[in-house]
Amino acid sequence: MGITAAVAGASGYAGGELLRLLLQHPQIEIGALTAGSNAGTRLAEHQPHLLPLADRVLGPTTAEQLQGHDLVFLALPHGTSAKIAAELPADTVVIDCGADHRLSSAEAWQEFYGGEHAGTWAYGLPELPHPGGERQRETLRGARRIAVPGCYPTASSLALAPGFAAGLLQPDDVVVVAASGTSGAGKAAKTNMIGSEVMGSMSPYGVGGVHRHTPEIEQNLGLAAQEAVRVSFTPTLAPMSRGILATCTAKLKPGVSAEAVREAWVSTYADEAFVHVLPEGRWPRTADTLGANTALIQVAVDERVGRVIVVSAIDNLAKGTAGGAIQSANLALDLPETLGLPLVGVAP
Amino acid sequence: MGITAAVAGASGYAGGELLRLLLQHPQIEIGALTAGSNAGTRLAEHQPHLLPLADRVLGPTTAEQLQGHDLVFLALPHGTSAKIAAELPADTVVIDCGADHRLSSAEAWQEFYGGEHAGTWAYGLPELPHPGGERQRETLRGARRIAVPGCYPTASSLALAPGFAAGLLQPDDVVVVAASGTSGAGKAAKTNMIGSEVMGSMSPYGVGGVHRHTPEIEQNLGLAAQEAVRVSFTPTLAPMSRGILATCTAKLKPGVSAEAVREAWVSTYADEAFVHVLPEGRWPRTADTLGANTALIQVAVDERVGRVIVVSAIDNLAKGTAGGAIQSANLALDLPETLGLPLVGVAP
Amino acid sequence: MGITAAVAGASGYAGGELLRLLLQHPQIEIGALTAGSNAGTRLAEHQPHLLPLADRVLGPTTAEQLQGHDLVFLALPHGTSAKIAAELPADTVVIDCGADHRLSSAEAWQEFYGGEHAGTWAYGLPELPHPGGERQRETLRGARRIAVPGCYPTASSLALAPGFAAGLLQPDDVVVVAASGTSGAGKAAKTNMIGSEVMGSMSPYGVGGVHRHTPEIEQNLGLAAQEAVRVSFTPTLAPMSRGILATCTAKLKPGVSAEAVREAWVSTYADEAFVHVLPEGRWPRTADTLGANTALIQVAVDERVGRVIVVSAIDNLAKGTAGGAIQSANLALDLPETLGLPLVGVAP
Amino acid sequence: MGITAAVAGASGYAGGELLRLLLQHPQIEIGALTAGSNAGTRLAEHQPHLLPLADRVLGPTTAEQLQGHDLVFLALPHGTSAKIAAELPADTVVIDCGADHRLSSAEAWQEFYGGEHAGTWAYGLPELPHPGGERQRETLRGARRIAVPGCYPTASSLALAPGFAAGLLQPDDVVVVAASGTSGAGKAAKTNMIGSEVMGSMSPYGVGGVHRHTPEIEQNLGLAAQEAVRVSFTPTLAPMSRGILATCTAKLKPGVSAEAVREAWVSTYADEAFVHVLPEGRWPRTADTLGANTALIQVAVDERVGRVIVVSAIDNLAKGTAGGAIQSANLALDLPETLGLPLVGVAP
Repeated sequence: MGITAAVAGASGYAGGELLRLLLQHPQIEIGALTAGSNAGTRLAEHQPHLLPLADRVLGPTTAEQLQGHDLVFLALPHGTSAKIAAELPADTVVIDCGADHRLSSAEAWQEFYGGEHAGTWAYGLPELPHPGGERQRETLRGARRIAVPGCYPTASSLALAPGFAAGLLQPDDVVVVAASGTSGAGKAAKTNMIGSEVMGSMSPYGVGGVHRHTPEIEQNLGLAAQEAVRVSFTPTLAPMSRGILATCTAKLKPGVSAEAVREAWVSTYADEAFVHVLPEGRWPRTADTLGANTALIQVAVDERVGRVIVVSAIDNLAKGTAGGAIQSANLALDLPETLGLPLVGVAP
Repeated sequence: MGITAAVAGASGYAGGELLRLLLQHPQIEIGALTAGSNAGTRLAEHQPHLLPLADRVLGPTTAEQLQGHDLVFLALPHGTSAKIAAELPADTVVIDCGADHRLSSAEAWQEFYGGEHAGTWAYGLPELPHPGGERQRETLRGARRIAVPGCYPTASSLALAPGFAAGLLQPDDVVVVAASGTSGAGKAAKTNMIGSEVMGSMSPYGVGGVHRHTPEIEQNLGLAAQEAVRVSFTPTLAPMSRGILATCTAKLKPGVSAEAVREAWVSTYADEAFVHVLPEGRWPRTADTLGANTALIQVAVDERVGRVIVVSAIDNLAKGTAGGAIQSANLALDLPETLGLPLVGVAP
Repeated sequence: MGITAAVAGASGYAGGELLRLLLQHPQIEIGALTAGSNAGTRLAEHQPHLLPLADRVLGPTTAEQLQGHDLVFLALPHGTSAKIAAELPADTVVIDCGADHRLSSAEAWQEFYGGEHAGTWAYGLPELPHPGGERQRETLRGARRIAVPGCYPTASSLALAPGFAAGLLQPDDVVVVAASGTSGAGKAAKTNMIGSEVMGSMSPYGVGGVHRHTPEIEQNLGLAAQEAVRVSFTPTLAPMSRGILATCTAKLKPGVSAEAVREAWVSTYADEAFVHVLPEGRWPRTADTLGANTALIQVAVDERVGRVIVVSAIDNLAKGTAGGAIQSANLALDLPETLGLPLVGVAP
Repeated sequence: MGITAAVAGASGYAGGELLRLLLQHPQIEIGALTAGSNAGTRLAEHQPHLLPLADRVLGPTTAEQLQGHDLVFLALPHGTSAKIAAELPADTVVIDCGADHRLSSAEAWQEFYGGEHAGTWAYGLPELPHPGGERQRETLRGARRIAVPGCYPTASSLALAPGFAAGLLQPDDVVVVAASGTSGAGKAAKTNMIGSEVMGSMSPYGVGGVHRHTPEIEQNLGLAAQEAVRVSFTPTLAPMSRGILATCTAKLKPGVSAEAVREAWVSTYADEAFVHVLPEGRWPRTADTLGANTALIQVAVDERVGRVIVVSAIDNLAKGTAGGAIQSANLALDLPETLGLPLVGVAP
């Protein structure tokens, strides 16, 4: 075909999922695979499920390795992608699955991540509604530098943005509690992440202070609302490999009816291929999104307390990372947005 | 010696956990075991782990079977315990693990459960702080009819009550999102509860309208606060058999400091055997409470949004049902409150 | 284009997996969907992950509904497919995912299943080696009635057949112990299969006497060996939704070397797309086959006891049922055998 | 009471389970706690469930720390306990949870573990039948150095020993396939053991060559049989924290009836408190042993192939390690053998 893609960080979970999905993509050919400390080893040692690439040897993550591709996916530790990207040609499509270029505010970056802000790239959440009816996807067509959203922000922003874009929600009382599968914590070997510790257990995840994904959620919802939105966000860890279930709630503005709420959510996503507002009475399960680039959403109004309850389910590695990345790549390359991306999860 | 206990509903999960714990109790002897449709069968068919009781045959759940015991535990479907209890002697200690007698408001009962309210019994959450410094346990000493709290209300009320009792929290903006293991849904065979459906998946649980545990949480927090408290409560189902992780958040009243928050929680439970506020920086995991009558709690302040975040972990069948029931029975019978109840969970 | 497929039993697990895979198949169009007691309901109630088919209404499972398709998949309870198939045109490709037509011996059928034997159809395990170097796939090209193997026999037969076909193994001392995910037990709501019972637990599965899959395994290995093979087979239930790990062991004939063993397994599957003998030192994990039509195999010799140990991993619903069914359908319809079938599992 | 116990290796899984059980023991007081690299830290960092010991600081694992106790439990890496034990007084009861002193054959030690054999201690499997009707427990009364069996050997030896002791089984064709929860692999942080890798997956465990537990199983069965027994043993890893399900099969000697088999197993364990042969038709589940010092066993004859199939379930950390250790300690100290040990598992 001629579209070639390199994947930096191919031995990790985001890298593995990128490769799994790219192997199904009809127009993208997999090029160089690179890694950090795993450079020099065969892919099969790290990704035994990727049988067609088993014998590929991982190169070092350098601009030299990544050059010469139309598309470069960076699945690297935070703080490392800016330097690599700067050495790549300006017309290469570079898709960063890390956090470095997601935030538009340098102050927020410094507060939550520390160090110098690497700059802001086009934000890869195509379905995000802008006020006035446009979508985030318009900013992605033809883009050459794209920041893939975090997995929690994907689930939370898709859940709540319709209400903010429609002006139905109060901006100062938003609570998100999200449960994530363990793959969201990456592949590093830590005692608190071994199977014996996480199976059969729920626990808060990284609650020591405010989670880094909070400003990203606030940025997205603020864009939809056209005013500052404040979010209380608590992530938890669930005993499963994949999946995010985000339970999101916000106060309704006075006089907003349940019908107006339903209409806002349904109409926002009526034409979206990957974001589905379920029929009334059915609630999303993460299992139904496993391996798919799909978000399932349900919304209800609790009139007793005057709040919307929105629950969204995604696969954190698919729609939450690698699937979203390829969806944005499709837009950047002027391919059909849905090309090569699965809609149907592997259930049960 | 000589204290005998009957268990009605011995083939279900609450009944099984009551028996597991009673087998460890040094002062209570297990008497009659009864069941509904399982009457006439051996206990081993339903509770294969209860080896010492394997050959006990379940009787029918009738007052006749339950009579002649000092203590009767009812682990029955909602709406059935009042009639049985009415036929038992007034000086028998009757502990209802069901919902029938938890709510003090007949209106709330009718709204959430329907049918006639069976009346209110002493509410079996000993640690619940009352304003003025007393605890709920005072109402349980010598009581002869006790309603065991629901598992979600146990986790949520213990988490938030210290802040309300100390006057630190606003009563109108409380959000609780709780994840429960599947045993909370009971032992009935339903397609949506089979292992293939629940393993590897998170989903909302019973969100069709407001969950029945909501008024019970509001009742408890309202008692602590001495004013009406409104709660947005969303339960979710996690892929594990046991455990509840409740993430609870409420708005701080103006000017409340993080120190005042910590002091309120720590001092409330400083003398409690089963409720532990963890040292700063450590967060509760449900696995650490498995099989134990223990609640683990951590509290933090998110100053950006002016909220407390409180996370509590319990075993829904132990502290959340059967352990709580026995703790109340100990109080009713003037035994040491902690007698026979495990504090240490089975981890990992 | 123009190939249409009906699926009978669309609300169950085998039916759901058939539809998930058929939605990815470039040449087969999904036609009628039927069910038993679920007839008249929408597919979304049973298969919420199959978003593109959500609004399809299930018809009754009758020949009338299934007629007019090129291809009919039967995912029905045992004992019911023969009657339906007899009413379908002889040139319709009928693929039975049930057990009715797998066994060639009427005596074995009566011993293990009871009732009259419905007859033997072409057996849909294309990779099964025959003595002389042919494969089972030759019998499937152009076939019009095909019996899909059981999931345990698929895993076990692929594991051991190379050794029998090469004459390396003794036929009278074969032991297979296989662990299966719970979806292998189907979607029926039974108390012993609810999540609370199966999570965190391993147990034998259906050990009351000899499992029905035993004669099928013996039939396959006997075909490869060209002599009667006797198998001790014990299935167990593992706390996961999908996956079979079969640990298979047999006595080596005198003088067989480890090299000869390795050569037999590697050469048998060297040209197979879906069956992979892993490099030495790497062992199969079921997770690496999730959702894929793939079998992973490793073989080793324990010289102390003179046995081979072969471990195979498949997804019981994919290669073990629906994937195998579509692979056979491809052969029957003269399509490329691998068309539309995923090779890469969804891991982690 | 005056019996004090030190635990070396208190931050690991075996150490944690020892402490959990010792906290329930009415006659043993917990003394020094030591660790390797975790020395100097508080126990709560490693064992958050052990609330009563949360503030205990771990000392270094030295003879100095361990001296002055009646009882010393060693839960240390293989190869390290002999040196420590040699420095402890001869009349201290030293219980080694590691492998160093389990094997009676120095040759077997060198073949499977390498290095010099540290010597053989009394083997702590009290229920193991000896020919002639004695039990292993006779060797443990008053013992001062005891080697705790491996978890797989405990499950496998209890399962098969009755048949060998009764002379019913052929010694040269024994196959054991056992599935273990991940805690059996210890608490070390390895990438292949993190939750994302093990949840939802079964895999062989350490099959690179013959597993080290094989000679130990052969030693036990050989003792029961009074002749050399050869075992093919394959361990697998199941997606659960705790539990071993061992599926064990052996050829019957000619003419042995199913009745003789049942009689051998039932009579062997009729008087045992912790080993239960289940009634016919009921099979063991690991969940029913969770946290308990219990082994559940079922035996059946497959007459088609002339084999017994024995399935046993234990908790690898309880009966398989720490519970077995305390049971032996009770014997060594002349306490009631069952003292302080739970019989009832935490199910569901």
